[in-house]
Amino acid sequence: MAAWAERLAGVRGVLLDISGVLYDSGAGGGAAIAGSVEAVARLKRSPLKVRFCTNESQKSRRELVGLLQRLGFNISEGEVTAPAPATCQILKERGLRPHLLVHDGVRSEFDDIDVSNPNCVVIADAGESFSYKNMNRAFQVLMELENPVLISLGKGRYYKETSGLMLDVGAYMKALEYACGIEAEVVGKPSPEFFKSALQAIGVEAHQAVMIGDDIVGDVGGAQKCGMRALQVRTGKFRPSDEHHPEVKADGYVDNLAEAVDLLLQHMDK
Amino acid sequence: MAAWAERLAGVRGVLLDISGVLYDSGAGGGAAIAGSVEAVARLKRSPLKVRFCTNESQKSRRELVGLLQRLGFNISEGEVTAPAPATCQILKERGLRPHLLVHDGVRSEFDDIDVSNPNCVVIADAGESFSYKNMNRAFQVLMELENPVLISLGKGRYYKETSGLMLDVGAYMKALEYACGIEAEVVGKPSPEFFKSALQAIGVEAHQAVMIGDDIVGDVGGAQKCGMRALQVRTGKFRPSDEHHPEVKADGYVDNLAEAVDLLLQHMDK
Repeated sequence: MAAWAERLAGVRGVLLDISGVLYDSGAGGGAAIAGSVEAVARLKRSPLKVRFCTNESQKSRRELVGLLQRLGFNISEGEVTAPAPATCQILKERGLRPHLLVHDGVRSEFDDIDVSNPNCVVIADAGESFSYKNMNRAFQVLMELENPVLISLGKGRYYKETSGLMLDVGAYMKALEYACGIEAEVVGKPSPEFFKSALQAIGVEAHQAVMIGDDIVGDVGGAQKCGMRALQVRTGKFRPSDEHHPEVKADGYVDNLAEAVDLLLQHMDK
Repeated sequence: MAAWAERLAGVRGVLLDISGVLYDSGAGGGAAIAGSVEAVARLKRSPLKVRFCTNESQKSRRELVGLLQRLGFNISEGEVTAPAPATCQILKERGLRPHLLVHDGVRSEFDDIDVSNPNCVVIADAGESFSYKNMNRAFQVLMELENPVLISLGKGRYYKETSGLMLDVGAYMKALEYACGIEAEVVGKPSPEFFKSALQAIGVEAHQAVMIGDDIVGDVGGAQKCGMRALQVRTGKFRPSDEHHPEVKADGYVDNLAEAVDLLLQHMDK
């Protein structure tokens, strides 16, 4: 067994990334990653607290959870921390009326938000809706504002679908930042506020928690900056070069969620 | 008369930006900027050497020059320095076979370039062709290369069409740089090699030349870094805040090309 697994002692809570850890999205809804359905079930039967912490911003929580349930996962909406609901809270607190550049699948999360006469832009992983026309409209809205505010639901570089790697919202966030000469506010991993809200939901302190994700920067680096431990799975967007990342070193690397859960359950009481 | 105009003494050659100085592009081909047709004619009748130096990458030189001629400009293909022909030279010199993410209008410039089995990506101002699908394909080509090479025809943030401000290639270059973790090679302004090739074409030294453009960074800042003087016109993408830019100060600001030519012709012999 890997020596690093000793570092898992004292863990009380687990944050699980969804895409690339539980399943790979793609045509027809995507496919569960081998062993993950059973791994989640074992975690939930254990004494460990479990929370799902995702940057998914193409789908509403309802749609995402429905999809995962159909793939066999034991998961409910109330167990998921996701950027769209967190963004709605920020918009309301600050009186912001967004121009939305988002996927149709997530639009329902913004149903009770005032989008008239916009004074900010919200972008999410819009997929095919990242057309030139839509990007240009978001750019023009920002350029017309005296104090342009751009909120980005995550800043991922790319994710993996069953058909291959796909550009994520971070690339388009960078495009708008550069064109407008501004800096976006990121809601989602690796923002510390986002990890903290997920931990609060299960009443676990950062030093008692471990994040399991496929993104060396957004999941692993972000969680470690918050004082958590973090494992990277070799599924989803994982690439072998991640294990030699110049800035981020995971507390451990595992082949998949099933192996991570094996190790966690063996070491949680030590 | 503005005191700064004294700085125009000793000018022997003029580089003229095209979009936003000669004309504003847009529906139906665009519109000449008032006074610019006559201003170009006066410059060409004067002893000053004139070269057009553009980052236009949606149209081939032939198409661009045809459009300008129809608007009344005295201009020929051989007088234009543009990024697509400069890129073709680089591709041939380095044995690069590009995946092209470009506007259909400029594709003919690459007619004699081998595009099979690509080992680099070339992006230009692709306009509506900057779809998610096309961006994702360029991203995937780069991610599959051991040493990804991204060549960008210019790195402008935006330009002005008759209908409003439009996102330029620089925004999409930044998106791919971020997604792939690489840095693009820029062919076009403000690259020093590009300005130098325009100056070589008219046999004028940088210290004897003035650049006239509407882009405070790409035209004015870039030319000044090469040792040229530079004027910004208050047409095209000019915004009043440009006159208080934190890093770049033009040698002078003029309302339009006509005023720039007035001043140049008055001062060139002093």
